[in-house]
Amino acid sequence: MADDFEKIGSVRTGDLELVSGKIIPDVGQAYAMYGEPSGGGDNVILVCHSLTSSHHLGGADVPGLPGGWMEPLLGPGRALDTNRLCVVCVNNLCSPYGSTGPMNVNPETGAPWGMKFPVITPRDVARAQHAALEALGIKRVAMVMGGSFGGMISLEYAMEFADSVKCCGVIAAPARLYPQAIAYNEVQRQAITSDPDWNGGDYYPGQGPAKGLATARMLAMITYRSEQNFSGRWMRGMSGDAHEWGAKFKVEEYLAHHGSALVARFDANCYIYTTRAMDLHDVSSGRGDLEDAFKRLSGKGVLTVGISSDILFPSWQVMETARWAGKAGARSNYEEIESDNGHDAFLIDFDQMDEILRFFFRKENI
Amino acid sequence: MADDFEKIGSVRTGDLELVSGKIIPDVGQAYAMYGEPSGGGDNVILVCHSLTSSHHLGGADVPGLPGGWMEPLLGPGRALDTNRLCVVCVNNLCSPYGSTGPMNVNPETGAPWGMKFPVITPRDVARAQHAALEALGIKRVAMVMGGSFGGMISLEYAMEFADSVKCCGVIAAPARLYPQAIAYNEVQRQAITSDPDWNGGDYYPGQGPAKGLATARMLAMITYRSEQNFSGRWMRGMSGDAHEWGAKFKVEEYLAHHGSALVARFDANCYIYTTRAMDLHDVSSGRGDLEDAFKRLSGKGVLTVGISSDILFPSWQVMETARWAGKAGARSNYEEIESDNGHDAFLIDFDQMDEILRFFFRKENI
Repeated sequence: MADDFEKIGSVRTGDLELVSGKIIPDVGQAYAMYGEPSGGGDNVILVCHSLTSSHHLGGADVPGLPGGWMEPLLGPGRALDTNRLCVVCVNNLCSPYGSTGPMNVNPETGAPWGMKFPVITPRDVARAQHAALEALGIKRVAMVMGGSFGGMISLEYAMEFADSVKCCGVIAAPARLYPQAIAYNEVQRQAITSDPDWNGGDYYPGQGPAKGLATARMLAMITYRSEQNFSGRWMRGMSGDAHEWGAKFKVEEYLAHHGSALVARFDANCYIYTTRAMDLHDVSSGRGDLEDAFKRLSGKGVLTVGISSDILFPSWQVMETARWAGKAGARSNYEEIESDNGHDAFLIDFDQMDEILRFFFRKENI
Repeated sequence: MADDFEKIGSVRTGDLELVSGKIIPDVGQAYAMYGEPSGGGDNVILVCHSLTSSHHLGGADVPGLPGGWMEPLLGPGRALDTNRLCVVCVNNLCSPYGSTGPMNVNPETGAPWGMKFPVITPRDVARAQHAALEALGIKRVAMVMGGSFGGMISLEYAMEFADSVKCCGVIAAPARLYPQAIAYNEVQRQAITSDPDWNGGDYYPGQGPAKGLATARMLAMITYRSEQNFSGRWMRGMSGDAHEWGAKFKVEEYLAHHGSALVARFDANCYIYTTRAMDLHDVSSGRGDLEDAFKRLSGKGVLTVGISSDILFPSWQVMETARWAGKAGARSNYEEIESDNGHDAFLIDFDQMDEILRFFFRKENI
């Protein structure tokens, strides 16, 4: 990739009024841009990222940011063809990778926000990202798309800013969180807040609740993969003498690895805020009912992508969105990634994602 | 129920040699008995209990023990008809309800075992229970049966003591633990051992890691139920203002309730040992392969019961046992509880359990 493949920067977008009516003062947001926007934004794809990933989608590594999670789909000649498309990703509010959140200083107190930061929702994140695009001079988008939490933000963005959105892509995400997913999130938060090093969220400067965050991530990793994936890789493989406490099943080592890896790169309060935002995802909230909410997508192209082995947001939840969008008069397209990789398949099975995106772009003339 | 419906007692069964070769000295085991054994035990049903339940199956409440979990199936005229059957349940090793485990004093040190207690497996539990039956003068059983962890012990018992077992009943349990279930167990142990109050297992006398154990139980409860169950009961129902941290979804309140309830009645080290025993469940271990292991069931009646909505031990895992048993020459019967209650359906959908048991008893002349 050329050195100028990726433009990384940040914008200040002023005060943000949340759905709750509360104000986050003086919001800052990091972003990445690939390719050049045409006049107005007819070629802009806004990609929304997931819980612990960042706005860095591909290209050379960027210090302080996790590796580009969309690399195989992004670049000249790839599905997100930067020769003709401009791909933008804005770092989510409450992500530790450059946008405003609980790690930042509350200008009113001069101390880090911690748990005094207001509770946010995916709709709030969408509003912030719309303000970021405005600051970048982008007035409309050809498509807003994302997977998992990014899919929730995408759906909210398309509904909230329907006038400036042509198409919407929702991958492995529901239109509202079901209680089992809320339950998994709550257990993860419980692991974090039970760790004395969390200290009510006041642990800055410092790493905070490393053990609690690791445990949370270990649980999350189970929900991101599948029995087929675990069985296929290790089944009951083990290191050590099974009858001693030092022995570990391979799946236990895998979870421990991912727990530590997240602790090294993520912030516990950010994790708490972002999982709560996910819990609060419900496109019908404040918009009447689901039918009313989906009317906002009338006349748009809506791509929904389920994953056959997803246990976190099972494909039937994605199909619901496809049906509601279709009923509301959208050009609704449901596709399914056939994979044993579980929820994370959208970050792994790029061959299928590539085909799905190319087909949709052709169909929608993007 | 008559006062003499339930006989509760305990037996000392001497030293127990484990599969690992280690010895647990001077084992004690609590038991409950309902009905009278015929000469030799032709009418004896050995019921094996699950992770956190006890040997108290039904009848009047017993101080210090959780409520009888088999009540609707047990008694005169019920499926487990105590007018003709003798139902025995032995408290599992490493259960806090009266059998030897990490809470007890290690006779060699005079201090509680804690984490110095040897690692056990379901086969070890089965061996201990066989010794308990011998101490009670019961030489053979018409059927050994149980659900979940109790199903694993039952299958091990039938294989280990094939000469003295006519039939075996395995409800919502696999023949070997798959890695996803190991993963859920490991996260639960991680929550417990990350709690500073666990203190490496040395917390007696005292409650120990209350927060860690509560978190573990919260996760376990998700795997014991189902999305259908949660959605049907509460969907996204919530108490409080969604945009404040004090607000709780109903599903969060449900998990918190079950977390605290377990802390009030269970021991954290026992939880660690018992979940590890579950991880180590593999009937093929030390017996060649699965085919070799199942040959031990040749000529026996084998009842397997899956649950349609079980996400912890999905019905396909139970069907595997049914197929292996059938191939090995057992009289294999697979039944399925159709229920939205998830794994716990065997503790809830008693009407279906009743019908399944009566049919099997008639067929097998029990």
